[in-house]
Amino acid sequence: MLELFIPGPTNVDQNVAQSLTKPMTGHRAPEFSELFAEVDQNLKKILYTQNRVFQLTCAATGAWEAVSRNFVGKGVLHVVNGAFSQRWAEISEICGKEVGVIELPWGKAVKPEQIRERLLTGKFDAVALAHNETSTGVLANLEEISSMLKREFPDVLFLIDSVSSMAGVKIEIDKLGVDACFASLQKAWGLPSGYALLCVSENAMERSREQKNKGYYFDLEVYDKFYKKNQTPYTPSIPHIYGLQTQTKRILEEGLDNRFKRHKSMAKFARNWVLENGFELFSEEGYHSETLTCVANTREIDIEKVAKVLKEKGYLFDKGYGKIKFKTFRISHMGETTQERLEKFLKTLEETIKASN
Amino acid sequence: MLELFIPGPTNVDQNVAQSLTKPMTGHRAPEFSELFAEVDQNLKKILYTQNRVFQLTCAATGAWEAVSRNFVGKGVLHVVNGAFSQRWAEISEICGKEVGVIELPWGKAVKPEQIRERLLTGKFDAVALAHNETSTGVLANLEEISSMLKREFPDVLFLIDSVSSMAGVKIEIDKLGVDACFASLQKAWGLPSGYALLCVSENAMERSREQKNKGYYFDLEVYDKFYKKNQTPYTPSIPHIYGLQTQTKRILEEGLDNRFKRHKSMAKFARNWVLENGFELFSEEGYHSETLTCVANTREIDIEKVAKVLKEKGYLFDKGYGKIKFKTFRISHMGETTQERLEKFLKTLEETIKASN
Repeated sequence: MLELFIPGPTNVDQNVAQSLTKPMTGHRAPEFSELFAEVDQNLKKILYTQNRVFQLTCAATGAWEAVSRNFVGKGVLHVVNGAFSQRWAEISEICGKEVGVIELPWGKAVKPEQIRERLLTGKFDAVALAHNETSTGVLANLEEISSMLKREFPDVLFLIDSVSSMAGVKIEIDKLGVDACFASLQKAWGLPSGYALLCVSENAMERSREQKNKGYYFDLEVYDKFYKKNQTPYTPSIPHIYGLQTQTKRILEEGLDNRFKRHKSMAKFARNWVLENGFELFSEEGYHSETLTCVANTREIDIEKVAKVLKEKGYLFDKGYGKIKFKTFRISHMGETTQERLEKFLKTLEETIKASN
Repeated sequence: MLELFIPGPTNVDQNVAQSLTKPMTGHRAPEFSELFAEVDQNLKKILYTQNRVFQLTCAATGAWEAVSRNFVGKGVLHVVNGAFSQRWAEISEICGKEVGVIELPWGKAVKPEQIRERLLTGKFDAVALAHNETSTGVLANLEEISSMLKREFPDVLFLIDSVSSMAGVKIEIDKLGVDACFASLQKAWGLPSGYALLCVSENAMERSREQKNKGYYFDLEVYDKFYKKNQTPYTPSIPHIYGLQTQTKRILEEGLDNRFKRHKSMAKFARNWVLENGFELFSEEGYHSETLTCVANTREIDIEKVAKVLKEKGYLFDKGYGKIKFKTFRISHMGETTQERLEKFLKTLEETIKASN
């Protein structure tokens, strides 16, 4: 068994994994609705929201499509600053939406003024961005963007990909006025892959009702109808709901402030390690991710070789993603990862790099 | 814990459930591809095919949409003889396809001549039907339809919803020339819900390449590209793949002939029980399902009351589906259900009905 230090899938706690084995139940039985309601209450606490939290049996890729199809009317402004925000923009296009793009160099974060300028054209009724761009380790400043949107563009929907931040970084959805916010479970949630959460505001639901060409599986009006009964419209992955039941309880027991502090402090530790070891941070100063650290491979180490040795030592190591593969590598510090495990891993990484040069 | 005698989700074996807890792995790691390849080989044996078997992280509802979007060109002829075949036809329409419908009374099976007549119009390049209509317990005769299609309409794609038959009824996909055949895992596969299999012929893939408006998550060209690398395009539900690894092994150990014989013989036993207890079969003679039996409630028993008592006795009992709810009830005999368990359940059902009248 390898310990995962890749930015997802991440390690799953044994008790959480064990909860996946609970007996199946009928998804129209009252026991199911009780389970769903319990999980839903916990999710709302963790996401600081009274909005609906839809549960989708799909990868986050499916959530991208759901958000693009349901919440974009006349046009969507996508912030593209890495591989995943880029793919989301492509999906909006494939779904037939009018797409505008703010294209930033990878590693950079968007500034509210850049969004403001483009929204002033009046072409867009939605803005879409990655809260935590997993390929580059850049964390957007939601507060700044939220203030600007609330002040100047109250009718523009605020759509957030929080795939690698949700449950690892505090996102006060209601306070920020985020209209759609989604993640899959195999990142900071510390659960197995195969399931997604999508938190949706009333304004966003209204937008959905006006849209055509939503397809069937991702038409969120249908989810809304069943959500009111504490159900999903189609048979969901029941093991993942059991997993969520156990894991949301654990998260609330850890305490949300403790959890987010743990992620912040591991991130700081990782960044210090990077600088002390003669590398540079790939992400822009002031916008470093709190769940993963993207390291510019300025020392030009042989990442493939390091990964191979680390595997022999029991670790799955990341080699960078997309066009910055091998030019960067990423250190994941989210979900079940603790300060202790991170330190141990970074010590091993340090030794491995030394030995392989 | 309730023993499930509903037509899905069905009971999961404890060893299979336990396999879901295996540690996560990276879905781009070589270990993953080995796992995927092993499962794929087993699936091909169970489905008597050399075709691709795509693995989709979604409910069967998603597979409906994938098939309609990818494999229908000028038009699709849907056989509608129950709630699920009806919904599939609706999905084809929602996806913007030209849809023709052969509408049959619920409980009836389609005859090849009915399909032939409509295909002669030349309006359709695909025919879609439920192999085993879960709402009515009707099993289509694939052999007859296949012969007719091969003889007269070799260019029409043969699309099969086998949600509640796959792995419980022998489907020789290659021999029958089935172009698309799909199921979710929580029925005769005896696995937890949340994952779907979709077996696709080369002809069907060609059709997919010609289609527009496939969306993103269900564009099967992308699945095909990754399938060649023993991967899925998006992070899949890894627990379900572990489950498939264990369960496909168990199925092959049971032996395919034994497995299908077991289902056939349980079905026969259930039908005898129905007639001996003064009920009638809802499904047309000669087309009775081998995985579930749909019972016409000719004795007008109080199904709600019976279900309540059975629950106290540890069983989840079905009350019929859609417009025939309470007019019928269904006895599920698939997946992990054995002759012994079925007999015990039917004895309890019999006593419960007697006591409640």
